[in-house]
Amino acid sequence: MKYCSNCAAEVELKIPEGDNRPRYVCPQCGMIHYENPRMVVGCIPVWEEKILICRRAIEPRHGLWTVPAGFMENGETLEQGAMRETEEEAGARVRIERLHAVYSLPQVNQVYVIFLAPMLDGRFEAGLESLECKLVTPAEIPWDEIAFTAIRFSLETYVRSLKTGATCAYTGFLDKNW
Amino acid sequence: MKYCSNCAAEVELKIPEGDNRPRYVCPQCGMIHYENPRMVVGCIPVWEEKILICRRAIEPRHGLWTVPAGFMENGETLEQGAMRETEEEAGARVRIERLHAVYSLPQVNQVYVIFLAPMLDGRFEAGLESLECKLVTPAEIPWDEIAFTAIRFSLETYVRSLKTGATCAYTGFLDKNW
Repeated sequence: MKYCSNCAAEVELKIPEGDNRPRYVCPQCGMIHYENPRMVVGCIPVWEEKILICRRAIEPRHGLWTVPAGFMENGETLEQGAMRETEEEAGARVRIERLHAVYSLPQVNQVYVIFLAPMLDGRFEAGLESLECKLVTPAEIPWDEIAFTAIRFSLETYVRSLKTGATCAYTGFLDKNW
Repeated sequence: MKYCSNCAAEVELKIPEGDNRPRYVCPQCGMIHYENPRMVVGCIPVWEEKILICRRAIEPRHGLWTVPAGFMENGETLEQGAMRETEEEAGARVRIERLHAVYSLPQVNQVYVIFLAPMLDGRFEAGLESLECKLVTPAEIPWDEIAFTAIRFSLETYVRSLKTGATCAYTGFLDKNW
């Protein structure tokens, strides 16, 4: 951020009065431009005990595998965002069964929120951001080619939950020293 | 948003190529300014079966009661943010026991993430944003003076969980037609 989005003056990085961390502040109109983490919402879509995964057609991690997930948009709930991403990236319709995983990535200012979501039917189709989509058994998950740490966490905990019968959401975070 | 934060040109509201919703786009440098929901992170701090609540010293909802919660900052995990807010608003130190509630407010582009958090000791002190803080039993919760819908949801489900023994996180959202 270089300029104030409200009045176009050059912003300064400084700690506002009564605050305790640096913000972009406009010296002309006084607006404080807060920056906050963003949410990535998605689903583990399941059909007949298989998981729907997508191979990424875009950077970062082009060619690697993920579950459908993307940035939450204004005006939607977490659940609506997760269903939208599943439709956009994998052409699949799902119902939200439960919250499965919440994972913080403080290094990149992101929080993943992943739902467990049975597919309404067995149909799917790669969207513009996917090279291909396919249904895999837990044993067929390509562990060496998973795109993101938070997706790996979501899939690992899902496979574990199948064995233990656990149904509570898993929480995790990428350690800063990792 | 009126001006590009990257080059100070006047932005336009339009649907970028390959996108499906209007964004603020800079006609000069081409930057797309995405806007996304923000997270409010907090705790239900518990000491000897009592809940620590805070009476707000700031708008909105000045004078009404809440649990310690505030906007998640860049560079922190959900858990770190919840503990920071509890320290700032109520002067209390806690450990995170588990995720308790996740609640979407699409009308205001917010998602609340509330943890259950035993206090490390019985000490607390109202921070700058609180008029007072106090420990209350579930029966003493001032239901008619709760500041926010998501906090009400968190407290109602917490009281219910005490009766049922449930330990999974609750999810909810404010219905758009509510």
